[in-house]
Amino acid sequence: MSQRPLDVLDNSKSKRVIVKLKNGSIISGVLRAFDLHLNMWLEEAELEDKDAKTKFGKLLVRGDNVIIISPE
Amino acid sequence: MSQRPLDVLDNSKSKRVIVKLKNGSIISGVLRAFDLHLNMWLEEAELEDKDAKTKFGKLLVRGDNVIIISPE
Amino acid sequence: MSQRPLDVLDNSKSKRVIVKLKNGSIISGVLRAFDLHLNMWLEEAELEDKDAKTKFGKLLVRGDNVIIISPE
Amino acid sequence: MSQRPLDVLDNSKSKRVIVKLKNGSIISGVLRAFDLHLNMWLEEAELEDKDAKTKFGKLLVRGDNVIIISPE
Amino acid sequence: MSQRPLDVLDNSKSKRVIVKLKNGSIISGVLRAFDLHLNMWLEEAELEDKDAKTKFGKLLVRGDNVIIISPE
Amino acid sequence: MSQRPLDVLDNSKSKRVIVKLKNGSIISGVLRAFDLHLNMWLEEAELEDKDAKTKFGKLLVRGDNVIIISPE
Amino acid sequence: MSQRPLDVLDNSKSKRVIVKLKNGSIISGVLRAFDLHLNMWLEEAELEDKDAKTKFGKLLVRGDNVIIISPE
Repeated sequence: MSQRPLDVLDNSKSKRVIVKLKNGSIISGVLRAFDLHLNMWLEEAELEDKDAKTKFGKLLVRGDNVIIISPE
Repeated sequence: MSQRPLDVLDNSKSKRVIVKLKNGSIISGVLRAFDLHLNMWLEEAELEDKDAKTKFGKLLVRGDNVIIISPE
Repeated sequence: MSQRPLDVLDNSKSKRVIVKLKNGSIISGVLRAFDLHLNMWLEEAELEDKDAKTKFGKLLVRGDNVIIISPE
Repeated sequence: MSQRPLDVLDNSKSKRVIVKLKNGSIISGVLRAFDLHLNMWLEEAELEDKDAKTKFGKLLVRGDNVIIISPE
Repeated sequence: MSQRPLDVLDNSKSKRVIVKLKNGSIISGVLRAFDLHLNMWLEEAELEDKDAKTKFGKLLVRGDNVIIISPE
Repeated sequence: MSQRPLDVLDNSKSKRVIVKLKNGSIISGVLRAFDLHLNMWLEEAELEDKDAKTKFGKLLVRGDNVIIISPE
Repeated sequence: MSQRPLDVLDNSKSKRVIVKLKNGSIISGVLRAFDLHLNMWLEEAELEDKDAKTKFGKLLVRGDNVIIISPE
Protein backbone atom coordinates (compact mmCIF):
# COMPACT_ATOMS: atom_id res chain seq x y z
CA MET A 1 0.00 0.00 0.00
CA SER A 2 1.25 3.46 -0.83
CA GLN A 3 2.76 5.50 1.96
CA ARG A 4 2.22 9.16 2.73
CA PRO A 5 5.00 11.43 3.98
CA LEU A 6 3.48 12.05 7.42
CA ASP A 7 3.51 8.29 8.04
CA VAL A 8 7.17 8.77 8.94
CA LEU A 9 5.93 10.23 12.24
CA ASP A 10 3.61 7.31 13.12
CA ASN A 11 6.32 5.41 14.91
CA SER A 12 7.59 8.58 16.53
CA LYS A 13 4.75 8.99 19.01
CA SER A 14 6.12 8.92 22.56
CA LYS A 15 9.59 9.28 21.08
CA ARG A 16 11.87 12.28 20.80
CA VAL A 17 11.87 14.33 17.60
CA ILE A 18 13.98 17.25 16.40
CA VAL A 19 12.09 20.13 14.78
CA LYS A 20 13.69 22.98 12.84
CA LEU A 21 11.62 26.14 12.52
CA LYS A 22 11.58 28.88 9.87
CA ASN A 23 12.86 31.45 12.40
CA GLY A 24 16.00 29.39 12.96
CA SER A 25 14.98 27.87 16.31
CA ILE A 26 15.48 24.16 16.97
CA ILE A 27 13.14 22.21 19.24
CA SER A 28 13.72 18.79 20.76
CA GLY A 29 10.75 17.11 22.39
CA VAL A 30 8.74 13.91 22.91
CA LEU A 31 5.94 13.75 20.32
CA ARG A 32 2.46 13.30 21.84
CA ALA A 33 0.28 14.23 18.87
CA PHE A 34 0.40 15.88 15.44
CA ASP A 35 -2.04 16.72 12.66
CA LEU A 36 -1.98 17.30 8.90
CA HIS A 37 -0.78 20.90 9.31
CA LEU A 38 2.14 19.58 11.40
CA ASN A 39 0.79 21.25 14.49
CA MET A 40 2.54 19.28 17.25
CA TRP A 41 2.08 18.62 20.93
CA LEU A 42 5.51 17.99 22.44
CA GLU A 43 6.55 17.19 26.01
CA GLU A 44 9.87 17.44 27.87
CA ALA A 45 10.79 19.98 25.18
CA GLU A 46 13.78 22.25 24.79
CA LEU A 47 13.81 25.19 22.39
CA GLU A 48 17.15 26.56 21.29
CA ASP A 49 17.46 29.85 19.48
CA LYS A 50 20.41 32.16 18.97
CA ASP A 51 20.01 33.64 22.44
CA ALA A 52 19.31 30.77 24.79
CA LYS A 53 17.90 27.33 25.55
CA THR A 54 14.47 27.17 27.20
CA LYS A 55 12.77 24.09 28.67
CA PHE A 56 9.00 23.50 28.41
CA GLY A 57 7.05 20.69 30.10
CA LYS A 58 4.40 20.87 27.40
CA LEU A 59 4.56 22.71 24.12
CA LEU A 60 2.23 23.31 21.21
CA VAL A 61 4.03 24.15 17.95
CA ARG A 62 1.99 25.81 15.17
CA GLY A 63 2.68 23.70 12.09
CA ASP A 64 3.25 26.50 9.59
CA ASN A 65 6.53 27.35 11.35
CA VAL A 66 8.06 23.94 10.61
CA ILE A 67 10.83 23.33 8.07
CA ILE A 68 11.80 19.74 8.97
CA ILE A 69 11.01 17.13 11.60
CA SER A 70 13.34 14.25 12.32
CA PRO A 71 12.80 11.28 14.60
CA GLU A 72 16.00 10.94 16.61
CA MET B 1 -8.54 7.29 21.59
CA SER B 2 -6.15 9.24 19.44
CA GLN B 3 -5.18 12.71 20.61
CA ARG B 4 -4.89 15.86 18.55
CA PRO B 5 -2.18 18.46 19.17
CA LEU B 6 -4.52 21.23 20.26
CA ASP B 7 -5.82 18.96 23.03
CA VAL B 8 -2.72 20.05 24.96
CA LEU B 9 -4.54 23.34 25.57
CA ASP B 10 -7.76 21.79 26.90
CA ASN B 11 -6.53 21.73 30.47
CA SER B 12 -5.03 25.19 30.06
CA LYS B 13 -8.30 27.09 30.10
CA SER B 14 -8.32 29.55 33.00
CA LYS B 15 -4.61 28.89 33.40
CA ARG B 16 -1.61 30.95 32.38
CA VAL B 17 0.10 30.20 29.06
CA ILE B 18 3.22 31.57 27.40
CA VAL B 19 2.95 32.45 23.71
CA LYS B 20 5.87 33.21 21.42
CA LEU B 21 5.05 35.21 18.28
CA LYS B 22 6.73 35.34 14.87
CA ASN B 23 7.72 38.99 15.42
CA GLY B 24 9.74 37.99 18.50
CA SER B 25 7.23 39.18 21.11
CA ILE B 26 6.37 37.00 24.08
CA ILE B 27 2.94 37.08 25.69
CA SER B 28 1.94 35.67 29.08
CA GLY B 29 -1.76 35.49 29.83
CA VAL B 30 -4.64 33.48 31.27
CA LEU B 31 -6.31 31.47 28.47
CA ARG B 32 -10.07 32.09 28.17
CA ALA B 33 -10.72 30.62 24.71
CA PHE B 34 -8.94 29.43 21.55
CA ASP B 35 -9.92 28.03 18.16
CA LEU B 36 -8.40 25.86 15.43
CA HIS B 37 -6.41 28.78 13.98
CA LEU B 38 -4.93 29.36 17.45
CA ASN B 39 -6.73 32.66 17.76
CA MET B 40 -6.67 33.21 21.53
CA TRP B 41 -8.55 35.27 24.05
CA LEU B 42 -6.20 35.98 26.95
CA GLU B 43 -6.73 37.91 30.17
CA GLU B 44 -4.34 39.49 32.69
CA ALA B 45 -1.86 39.50 29.82
CA GLU B 46 1.60 40.96 29.48
CA LEU B 47 3.31 41.42 26.12
CA GLU B 48 7.07 41.76 26.06
CA ASP B 49 8.93 42.90 22.99
CA LYS B 50 12.41 44.30 22.52
CA ASP B 51 11.28 47.76 23.61
CA ALA B 52 9.00 47.31 26.59
CA LYS B 53 6.50 45.29 28.60
CA THR B 54 2.82 46.20 28.21
CA LYS B 55 -0.09 44.94 30.32
CA PHE B 56 -3.55 44.21 28.85
CA GLY B 57 -6.68 43.28 30.80
CA LYS B 58 -8.07 41.45 27.78
CA LEU B 59 -6.25 40.51 24.62
CA LEU B 60 -7.15 38.84 21.35
CA VAL B 61 -4.18 37.26 19.57
CA ARG B 62 -4.57 36.46 15.84
CA GLY B 63 -3.49 32.83 15.52
CA ASP B 64 -1.31 33.14 12.45
CA ASN B 65 1.25 35.08 14.49
CA VAL B 66 1.90 32.16 16.86
CA ILE B 67 5.07 30.05 16.89
CA ILE B 68 4.57 28.13 20.15
CA ILE B 69 2.21 28.05 23.11
CA SER B 70 3.20 26.55 26.41
CA PRO B 71 1.08 25.97 29.49
CA GLU B 72 3.14 27.24 32.43
CA MET C 1 -21.56 27.23 26.79
CA SER C 2 -18.10 27.21 25.29
CA GLN C 3 -16.64 30.54 24.31
CA ARG C 4 -14.75 31.40 21.16
CA PRO C 5 -11.78 33.78 21.13
CA LEU C 6 -13.46 36.46 19.01
CA ASP C 7 -16.22 36.69 21.62
CA VAL C 8 -13.82 38.91 23.55
CA LEU C 9 -14.69 41.64 21.06
CA ASP C 10 -18.48 41.34 21.43
CA ASN C 11 -18.63 43.81 24.28
CA SER C 12 -16.15 46.07 22.52
CA LYS C 13 -18.53 47.36 19.88
CA SER C 14 -18.84 51.14 20.16
CA LYS C 15 -15.85 51.08 22.51
CA ARG C 16 -12.24 51.96 21.92
CA VAL C 17 -9.77 49.18 21.02
CA ILE C 18 -6.02 49.12 20.54
CA VAL C 19 -4.73 47.19 17.52
CA LYS C 20 -1.12 46.25 16.87
CA LEU C 21 -0.20 45.51 13.27
CA LYS C 22 2.52 43.31 11.78
CA ASN C 23 4.28 46.35 10.30
CA GLY C 24 4.72 47.83 13.77
CA SER C 25 1.93 50.41 13.54
CA ILE C 26 -0.50 50.85 16.43
CA ILE C 27 -4.10 51.91 15.86
CA SER C 28 -6.55 53.20 18.43
CA GLY C 29 -10.18 53.47 17.36
CA VAL C 30 -13.82 52.90 18.24
CA LEU C 31 -14.93 49.46 16.98
CA ARG C 32 -18.00 49.58 14.72
CA ALA C 33 -17.80 46.10 13.15
CA PHE C 34 -15.48 43.13 12.70
CA ASP C 35 -15.57 39.73 10.99
CA LEU C 36 -13.90 36.33 11.32
CA HIS C 37 -10.78 37.49 9.44
CA LEU C 38 -10.49 40.36 11.95
CA ASN C 39 -11.24 42.89 9.26
CA MET C 40 -12.34 45.89 11.32
CA TRP C 41 -14.30 49.07 10.78
CA LEU C 42 -12.99 51.67 13.23
CA GLU C 43 -14.03 55.28 13.81
CA GLU C 44 -12.30 58.25 15.48
CA ALA C 45 -9.10 56.35 14.79
CA GLU C 46 -5.47 57.28 15.20
CA LEU C 47 -2.66 55.35 13.54
CA GLU C 48 0.81 55.68 14.99
CA ASP C 49 3.87 54.43 13.16
CA LYS C 50 7.54 55.25 13.55
CA ASP C 51 7.15 58.48 11.54
CA ALA C 52 3.97 60.12 12.70
CA LYS C 53 0.45 59.96 14.12
CA THR C 54 -2.45 60.23 11.64
CA LYS C 55 -6.13 60.68 12.47
CA PHE C 56 -8.91 59.02 10.44
CA GLY C 57 -12.66 59.59 10.86
CA LYS C 58 -13.38 56.13 9.47
CA LEU C 59 -10.92 53.32 8.88
CA LEU C 60 -11.09 49.82 7.45
CA VAL C 61 -8.27 47.55 8.66
CA ARG C 62 -7.56 44.39 6.63
CA GLY C 63 -7.53 41.58 9.19
CA ASP C 64 -4.43 39.75 8.02
CA ASN C 65 -2.29 42.66 9.26
CA VAL C 66 -3.38 42.21 12.87
CA ILE C 67 -1.18 40.82 15.65
CA ILE C 68 -3.30 41.67 18.70
CA ILE C 69 -6.46 43.58 19.56
CA SER C 70 -7.15 44.83 23.05
CA PRO C 71 -10.28 46.46 24.41
CA GLU C 72 -9.12 49.48 26.40
CA MET D 1 -29.20 44.71 11.71
CA SER D 2 -25.61 43.79 12.35
CA GLN D 3 -23.00 45.56 10.25
CA ARG D 4 -19.96 44.06 8.60
CA PRO D 5 -16.61 45.87 8.41
CA LEU D 6 -16.61 46.28 4.62
CA ASP D 7 -19.91 48.15 4.90
CA VAL D 8 -17.78 51.16 5.80
CA LEU D 9 -16.90 51.38 2.10
CA ASP D 10 -20.50 51.29 0.83
CA ASN D 11 -20.90 55.03 1.02
CA SER D 12 -17.42 55.53 -0.41
CA LYS D 13 -18.27 54.55 -3.97
CA SER D 14 -17.55 57.47 -6.31
CA LYS D 15 -15.72 59.14 -3.43
CA ARG D 16 -12.02 59.48 -2.74
CA VAL D 17 -10.32 56.95 -0.44
CA ILE D 18 -6.82 56.71 0.97
CA VAL D 19 -5.18 53.27 0.85
CA LYS D 20 -2.01 52.28 2.66
CA LEU D 21 -0.14 49.27 1.27
CA LYS D 22 2.15 46.75 2.94
CA ASN D 23 5.12 47.98 0.87
CA GLY D 24 4.74 51.48 2.36
CA SER D 25 3.06 53.07 -0.67
CA ILE D 26 0.03 55.31 -0.22
CA ILE D 27 -2.68 55.55 -2.88
CA SER D 28 -5.39 58.19 -3.16
CA GLY D 29 -8.18 57.51 -5.65
CA VAL D 30 -11.90 57.57 -6.37
CA LEU D 31 -13.42 54.18 -5.49
CA ARG D 32 -15.36 52.60 -8.37
CA ALA D 33 -15.64 49.01 -7.10
CA PHE D 34 -14.27 46.63 -4.46
CA ASP D 35 -14.76 43.00 -3.45
CA LEU D 36 -14.37 40.83 -0.35
CA HIS D 37 -10.60 40.48 -0.88
CA LEU D 38 -10.37 44.29 -0.95
CA ASN D 39 -9.37 44.23 -4.59
CA MET D 40 -10.21 47.78 -5.67
CA TRP D 41 -10.85 49.66 -8.89
CA LEU D 42 -9.77 53.26 -8.39
CA GLU D 43 -9.87 56.23 -10.75
CA GLU D 44 -8.04 59.57 -10.79
CA ALA D 45 -5.49 57.84 -8.60
CA GLU D 46 -2.13 58.93 -7.29
CA LEU D 47 0.40 56.49 -5.85
CA GLU D 48 3.09 57.85 -3.58
CA ASP D 49 6.09 55.79 -2.58
CA LYS D 50 9.47 56.76 -1.19
CA ASP D 51 10.74 57.69 -4.67
CA ALA D 52 7.99 59.58 -6.41
CA LYS D 53 4.31 60.32 -6.99
CA THR D 54 2.65 58.70 -10.03
CA LYS D 55 -0.79 59.47 -11.46
CA PHE D 56 -3.04 56.77 -12.94
CA GLY D 57 -6.36 57.32 -14.71
CA LYS D 58 -7.52 53.85 -13.74
CA LEU D 59 -5.94 51.51 -11.25
CA LEU D 60 -6.61 47.98 -10.03
CA VAL D 61 -5.16 47.28 -6.56
CA ARG D 62 -4.75 43.62 -5.54
CA GLY D 63 -6.43 43.37 -2.15
CA ASP D 64 -3.79 41.34 -0.34
CA ASN D 65 -1.46 44.37 -0.42
CA VAL D 66 -3.81 46.51 1.66
CA ILE D 67 -3.22 47.51 5.29
CA ILE D 68 -5.92 50.17 5.74
CA ILE D 69 -8.48 52.02 3.65
CA SER D 70 -9.94 55.32 4.77
CA PRO D 71 -12.75 57.31 3.19
CA GLU D 72 -11.54 60.91 3.08
CA MET E 1 -25.72 46.65 -12.25
CA SER E 2 -22.99 46.53 -9.66
CA GLN E 3 -19.43 46.44 -10.90
CA ARG E 4 -16.59 44.32 -9.67
CA PRO E 5 -13.01 45.60 -9.41
CA LEU E 6 -11.58 43.29 -12.06
CA ASP E 7 -14.07 44.72 -14.56
CA VAL E 8 -11.61 47.60 -14.93
CA LEU E 9 -9.49 45.21 -17.01
CA ASP E 10 -12.28 44.15 -19.38
CA ASN E 11 -11.63 46.97 -21.79
CA SER E 12 -7.89 46.46 -21.45
CA LYS E 13 -7.68 43.27 -23.48
CA SER E 14 -5.40 43.79 -26.47
CA LYS E 15 -4.26 47.03 -24.85
CA ARG E 16 -1.12 47.90 -22.98
CA VAL E 17 -1.12 47.71 -19.17
CA ILE E 18 1.44 48.64 -16.55
CA VAL E 19 1.95 46.12 -13.72
CA LYS E 20 3.86 46.78 -10.52
CA LEU E 21 5.13 43.70 -8.67
CA LYS E 22 5.88 43.11 -4.99
CA ASN E 23 9.60 42.67 -5.74
CA GLY E 24 9.76 46.21 -7.18
CA SER E 25 9.77 45.20 -10.85
CA ILE E 26 7.56 47.02 -13.34
CA ILE E 27 6.13 45.27 -16.40
CA SER E 28 4.57 46.89 -19.44
CA GLY E 29 2.75 44.58 -21.85
CA VAL E 30 -0.29 44.01 -24.01
CA LEU E 31 -2.94 42.12 -22.03
CA ARG E 32 -4.14 38.92 -23.72
CA ALA E 33 -5.86 37.19 -20.79
CA PHE E 34 -6.25 37.34 -17.01
CA ASP E 35 -8.08 35.40 -14.30
CA LEU E 36 -9.43 35.99 -10.80
CA HIS E 37 -5.99 35.50 -9.21
CA LEU E 38 -4.64 38.21 -11.55
CA ASN E 39 -2.51 35.68 -13.38
CA MET E 40 -1.85 37.48 -16.66
CA TRP E 41 -0.78 36.57 -20.17
CA LEU E 42 1.06 39.56 -21.64
CA GLU E 43 2.65 40.07 -25.05
CA GLU E 44 5.26 42.52 -26.35
CA ALA E 45 6.27 42.88 -22.73
CA GLU E 46 9.13 44.68 -21.06
CA LEU E 47 10.19 44.00 -17.48
CA GLU E 48 12.19 46.64 -15.68
CA ASP E 49 13.92 45.95 -12.40
CA LYS E 50 16.73 47.73 -10.61
CA ASP E 51 19.35 46.05 -12.82
CA ALA E 52 18.03 46.10 -16.37
CA LYS E 53 15.18 46.11 -18.85
CA THR E 54 14.29 42.78 -20.50
CA LYS E 55 11.93 42.24 -23.43
CA PHE E 56 9.65 39.18 -23.70
CA GLY E 57 7.46 38.27 -26.68
CA LYS E 58 5.08 36.37 -24.39
CA LEU E 59 4.95 36.46 -20.63
CA LEU E 60 2.93 34.73 -17.93
CA VAL E 61 2.81 36.67 -14.64
CA ARG E 62 1.76 34.75 -11.51
CA GLY E 63 -0.99 36.86 -9.97
CA ASP E 64 0.16 36.73 -6.35
CA ASN E 65 3.14 38.95 -7.25
CA VAL E 66 0.95 41.86 -8.34
CA ILE E 67 0.50 45.10 -6.39
CA ILE E 68 -1.29 47.23 -8.99
CA ILE E 69 -2.32 47.04 -12.64
CA SER E 70 -3.06 50.14 -14.67
CA PRO E 71 -4.44 50.39 -18.18
CA GLU E 72 -2.29 52.94 -19.96
CA MET F 1 -13.77 31.61 -27.12
CA SER F 2 -12.25 33.39 -24.16
CA GLN F 3 -8.67 32.58 -23.30
CA ARG F 4 -7.17 31.99 -19.90
CA PRO F 5 -3.70 33.22 -18.93
CA LEU F 6 -2.18 29.76 -18.51
CA ASP F 7 -3.11 28.98 -22.12
CA VAL F 8 0.03 30.89 -23.06
CA LEU F 9 1.96 27.81 -21.92
CA ASP F 10 -0.02 25.30 -24.01
CA ASN F 11 2.21 25.69 -27.02
CA SER F 12 5.28 25.70 -24.80
CA LYS F 13 5.25 21.99 -23.99
CA SER F 14 8.47 20.36 -25.17
CA LYS F 15 9.87 23.86 -25.68
CA ARG F 16 12.27 25.90 -23.61
CA VAL F 17 10.89 28.40 -21.09
CA ILE F 18 12.53 30.97 -18.85
CA VAL F 19 11.29 31.12 -15.25
CA LYS F 20 12.08 33.87 -12.77
CA LEU F 21 11.68 32.99 -9.09
CA LYS F 22 10.90 35.12 -6.05
CA ASN F 23 14.36 34.42 -4.57
CA GLY F 24 16.02 35.99 -7.63
CA SER F 25 17.01 32.71 -9.33
CA ILE F 26 16.42 32.24 -13.05
CA ILE F 27 15.70 28.80 -14.52
CA SER F 28 15.83 27.81 -18.17
CA GLY F 29 14.38 24.41 -19.08
CA VAL F 30 12.24 22.39 -21.47
CA LEU F 31 8.64 22.31 -20.20
CA ARG F 32 7.23 18.80 -19.79
CA ALA F 33 4.17 19.53 -17.63
CA PHE F 34 2.57 22.22 -15.49
CA ASP F 35 -0.57 22.64 -13.39
CA LEU F 36 -2.81 25.44 -12.15
CA HIS F 37 -0.44 26.29 -9.28
CA LEU F 38 2.37 26.69 -11.86
CA ASN F 39 4.16 23.67 -10.47
CA MET F 40 6.42 22.71 -13.39
CA TRP F 41 8.32 19.68 -14.57
CA LEU F 42 11.33 20.88 -16.54
CA GLU F 43 14.08 18.94 -18.32
CA GLU F 44 17.58 19.91 -19.52
CA ALA F 45 17.32 22.70 -16.97
CA GLU F 46 19.82 25.26 -15.76
CA LEU F 47 19.32 27.27 -12.59
CA GLU F 48 21.25 30.50 -12.20
CA ASP F 49 21.47 32.33 -8.90
CA LYS F 50 23.87 34.94 -7.64
CA ASP F 51 26.49 32.30 -6.82
CA ALA F 52 26.55 29.84 -9.69
CA LYS F 53 24.87 28.02 -12.54
CA THR F 54 23.68 24.45 -11.90
CA LYS F 55 22.43 21.95 -14.47
CA PHE F 56 19.60 19.47 -13.74
CA GLY F 57 18.41 16.67 -16.03
CA LYS F 58 14.95 16.81 -14.47
CA LEU F 59 13.56 19.46 -12.19
CA LEU F 60 10.31 20.02 -10.31
CA VAL F 61 9.63 23.68 -9.50
CA ARG F 62 7.05 24.43 -6.77
CA GLY F 63 4.69 26.93 -8.37
CA ASP F 64 4.41 29.38 -5.48
CA ASN F 65 8.03 30.47 -6.10
CA VAL F 66 7.29 31.73 -9.62
CA ILE F 67 7.16 35.40 -10.62
CA ILE F 68 7.09 35.08 -14.41
CA ILE F 69 7.37 32.39 -17.07
CA SER F 70 8.31 33.20 -20.63
CA PRO F 71 8.37 30.90 -23.64
CA GLU F 72 11.66 31.61 -25.40
CA MET G 1 -2.27 10.82 -21.72
CA SER G 2 -1.45 14.21 -20.26
CA GLN G 3 1.22 14.36 -17.60
CA ARG G 4 1.20 16.35 -14.38
CA PRO G 5 4.32 18.02 -12.97
CA LEU G 6 4.53 15.86 -9.85
CA ASP G 7 4.71 12.77 -12.06
CA VAL G 8 8.40 13.60 -12.44
CA LEU G 9 8.83 12.23 -8.91
CA ASP G 10 7.06 8.91 -9.55
CA ASN G 11 10.21 7.19 -10.69
CA SER G 12 12.18 8.82 -7.91
CA LYS G 13 10.78 6.72 -5.08
CA SER G 14 13.61 4.84 -3.36
CA LYS G 15 16.05 7.04 -5.25
CA ARG G 16 18.06 10.04 -4.14
CA VAL G 17 16.68 13.52 -4.74
CA ILE G 18 18.12 17.00 -4.20
CA VAL G 19 15.81 19.55 -2.57
CA LYS G 20 16.46 23.29 -2.37
CA LEU G 21 14.57 25.17 0.34
CA LYS G 22 13.45 28.79 0.57
CA ASN G 23 15.81 29.43 3.50
CA GLY G 24 18.80 28.50 1.34
CA SER G 25 19.33 24.99 2.76
CA ILE G 26 19.96 22.05 0.43
CA ILE G 27 18.82 18.54 1.34
CA SER G 28 19.91 15.29 -0.29
CA GLY G 29 17.94 12.18 0.61
CA VAL G 30 16.27 8.98 -0.58
CA LEU G 31 12.60 9.67 -1.36
CA ARG G 32 10.17 7.37 0.48
CA ALA G 33 6.91 9.29 0.02
CA PHE G 34 5.53 12.67 -1.05
CA ASP G 35 2.13 14.32 -1.38
CA LEU G 36 0.51 17.12 -3.37
CA HIS G 37 1.89 19.80 -1.02
CA LEU G 38 5.39 18.39 -1.66
CA ASN G 39 5.63 17.24 1.94
CA MET G 40 8.37 14.61 1.70
CA TRP G 41 9.59 11.67 3.74
CA LEU G 42 13.32 11.26 3.07
CA GLU G 43 15.83 8.74 4.40
CA GLU G 44 19.64 8.72 4.61
CA ALA G 45 19.33 12.50 4.35
CA GLU G 46 21.90 15.26 4.64
CA LEU G 47 20.93 18.89 5.17
CA GLU G 48 23.46 21.54 4.25
CA ASP G 49 23.05 25.15 5.29
CA LYS G 50 25.51 27.99 5.54
CA ASP G 51 26.77 26.75 8.91
CA ALA G 52 27.12 22.99 8.65
CA LYS G 53 26.08 19.65 7.23
CA THR G 54 23.76 17.47 9.34
CA LYS G 55 22.81 13.85 8.72
CA PHE G 56 19.32 12.47 9.46
CA GLY G 57 18.24 8.82 9.24
CA LYS G 58 14.66 9.89 8.59
CA LEU G 59 13.39 13.33 7.73
CA LEU G 60 10.01 14.92 7.11
CA VAL G 61 10.19 18.11 5.01
CA ARG G 62 7.16 20.45 5.09
CA GLY G 63 6.33 21.08 1.45
CA ASP G 64 5.79 24.83 1.62
CA ASN G 65 9.55 25.29 2.18
CA VAL G 66 10.47 23.75 -1.17
CA ILE G 67 11.77 25.70 -4.18
CA ILE G 68 12.92 22.84 -6.42
CA ILE G 69 13.30 19.07 -6.28
CA SER G 70 15.62 17.23 -8.64
CA PRO G 71 16.05 13.50 -9.06
CA GLU G 72 19.80 12.91 -9.14
